[in-house]
Amino acid sequence: MRPADTRHKLSRRQLLSSATGLGAAALLPRNASAQQPPEASNELGLPARPYGFRSPFEKDVVRLVDSGSGRTPLQDLQGIITPSALHYEILHFGMPIINPAHHELLIDGLVERPLIFTMKDLERMPAVSRIHFLECAGNSWREQVGNPGNTPEESHGLLSCTEWTGVPLAVLLEQTGLKPSARWILAEGADVGRLARSLPVEKALDDIIVAYAQNGEALRPEQGYPVRLIVPGWEGNVNVKWLHRLEVLDQPAMTAWETGHYTDLLPSGKARQFTFVMEAKSVIVRPAGGQRLDGSGVYELTGLAWSGRGKISGVEVTVDGGRSWQKAELQEPIHTKAFTRFRWTWNWSGVETTIASRCTDETGYRQPTREQIIAARGLNATDHYNGIKWWRVRTDGQITHA
Amino acid sequence: MRPADTRHKLSRRQLLSSATGLGAAALLPRNASAQQPPEASNELGLPARPYGFRSPFEKDVVRLVDSGSGRTPLQDLQGIITPSALHYEILHFGMPIINPAHHELLIDGLVERPLIFTMKDLERMPAVSRIHFLECAGNSWREQVGNPGNTPEESHGLLSCTEWTGVPLAVLLEQTGLKPSARWILAEGADVGRLARSLPVEKALDDIIVAYAQNGEALRPEQGYPVRLIVPGWEGNVNVKWLHRLEVLDQPAMTAWETGHYTDLLPSGKARQFTFVMEAKSVIVRPAGGQRLDGSGVYELTGLAWSGRGKISGVEVTVDGGRSWQKAELQEPIHTKAFTRFRWTWNWSGVETTIASRCTDETGYRQPTREQIIAARGLNATDHYNGIKWWRVRTDGQITHA
Repeated sequence: MRPADTRHKLSRRQLLSSATGLGAAALLPRNASAQQPPEASNELGLPARPYGFRSPFEKDVVRLVDSGSGRTPLQDLQGIITPSALHYEILHFGMPIINPAHHELLIDGLVERPLIFTMKDLERMPAVSRIHFLECAGNSWREQVGNPGNTPEESHGLLSCTEWTGVPLAVLLEQTGLKPSARWILAEGADVGRLARSLPVEKALDDIIVAYAQNGEALRPEQGYPVRLIVPGWEGNVNVKWLHRLEVLDQPAMTAWETGHYTDLLPSGKARQFTFVMEAKSVIVRPAGGQRLDGSGVYELTGLAWSGRGKISGVEVTVDGGRSWQKAELQEPIHTKAFTRFRWTWNWSGVETTIASRCTDETGYRQPTREQIIAARGLNATDHYNGIKWWRVRTDGQITHA
Repeated sequence: MRPADTRHKLSRRQLLSSATGLGAAALLPRNASAQQPPEASNELGLPARPYGFRSPFEKDVVRLVDSGSGRTPLQDLQGIITPSALHYEILHFGMPIINPAHHELLIDGLVERPLIFTMKDLERMPAVSRIHFLECAGNSWREQVGNPGNTPEESHGLLSCTEWTGVPLAVLLEQTGLKPSARWILAEGADVGRLARSLPVEKALDDIIVAYAQNGEALRPEQGYPVRLIVPGWEGNVNVKWLHRLEVLDQPAMTAWETGHYTDLLPSGKARQFTFVMEAKSVIVRPAGGQRLDGSGVYELTGLAWSGRGKISGVEVTVDGGRSWQKAELQEPIHTKAFTRFRWTWNWSGVETTIASRCTDETGYRQPTREQIIAARGLNATDHYNGIKWWRVRTDGQITHA
């Protein structure tokens, strides 16, 4: 900001108010030389539109895409809601475009009454809306091998948070009934690869949602339009998209996605399997890698914290390489299994330093260090890495991975 | 929904699991004749995209636009977050497209230090994110003259709710300082008409936000890109868009927008002025006018409640013309000055009836009836109508304004 030179302004509103005869202009300084704030428009603007789009000046805020994935530009976003158009996506078999008028959900297997639900059936059933994060199991795993990307998007961008709406899976299972031997539910997508994952019945009866809407409107195609599972707090891959079948089983189906993939190889050579929960984690997104501070002074330091086990109870930040930790302010209200935005005001002196955040969830679990994770699990597992993330701030203001 | 014929399915996953050699397929019924649920894809889908868009099957979910406004299709939306592309818009002078690199905010008048803030200045200052509704003062006013539209969009569509991010105005005023005589702040937009409104300093120091983001990303152009006021709970018009000047005054400026417009004419011939607060209000959006129930049976009844004075504390619904009222379920957590989604499961017997909702906020204020409003204020005021909204359900399932 800079001081305003109040001698050089003429308010067009002053003229307008004078014209109303109400005398308000008399309250205001009267200056002769005209200087409007820049960029004030002097012509009539564009008309209303049925479906809005972004300012052309925002065109560079995009997902970082490769053939099968798109990463959320966390460093460019605010608050806790990710816009649907920037929600991360992983497309193992590309994105099918499905006609909802023909799409159906079959529930069969160990149920009393196998049923088929059309989208219209689902939409007239009791619904819930909840704000939840989604995170890919492999998000930020390259941190542990010391080769992360240089920006929050590159290191942590397989991560987003939106408001999901749909029918609790428990409501659908009430309709079908469960046989006494029911223990697992296999969820299968209608993508060409029929991606399928097994989930315990207890989770299905707890908080899984058969979701058809995101941030108020229908799911986007890459998010599973017209219907997907939302499995709050659990790794992204089990949130099966383009959902067309739920089969109730007495044990897991052992699909390729829970045997060959999405298991965590330990140093012993054994692999952890069905490690669904995304444990508490946090990351500073501004100031962060790829950004540059414009000299010493006051900056807002902000980031995101989340836990697959419930609410975030606290976030601490350090701006001196971990010698001291300060309590960050948390955005209220805090939602369960959702982003919690944290903020802290940093007066940077201009010296080189490293900065980081660490969070605690309502179960008392505290985000571990990279060293703790490697000591416990080695370096082979590529999923469920949730270590503290460091950024290095150099004296010229440039920020990099630390 | 309908019973599934379990004899006619072949699970591709069964085949895949068999191939893994893990024996899971043995757990499953083995049926020879193949019948996939419809619409399962048999070809590779589309690749990831930098910025997503909707399914082509959703193209009819749009704002209802005329030259200067766009109404939110409330009946098509879920949860409490309105997608930015469907947020209501009122464009008194059209929508300017502003370059944020050149846009500045001037704060002057009765301040100690007049200051100019660039967008970069604003973005490095301490921010807040809050979910708040916005409602046009005139939303649903035609209810009182018995000539509302026939759908929730037509009757109540100048109404939306999103997550806003920006700097508390109090933080900016701390920088400029206020002179002892400061009582009002005139906010002026950079649109060609320089729309300007006066706001009390107390509100500015309470919860007004100088907002630059909505639902995580930058404001949309029609919402004031790059910066606007968010004045929580107060009529839409004072949430000045394309904000480029705040002038601190010792009394209101009496602009055209607070004298000729946005005042409430009473039967006495006097007009109420500066009636900023949007009082508690609710509306059922499904089932609602323009929709048709597909025969008797169970339906989810859902709608929205909101109050400019704080949190919604309760919503009741009637499905028998007001003879009995039932407590609806409220979506948690409840945010202050924001949409609260309510839901109730209705088993419709097929008889003609009228349905409505009424809400109460945390101050104890209860949404009034149309008759109470008319008795108190007459029929001339076109703003701040918040009466109970009735829909008529006919025996053929058609629903109309009641």
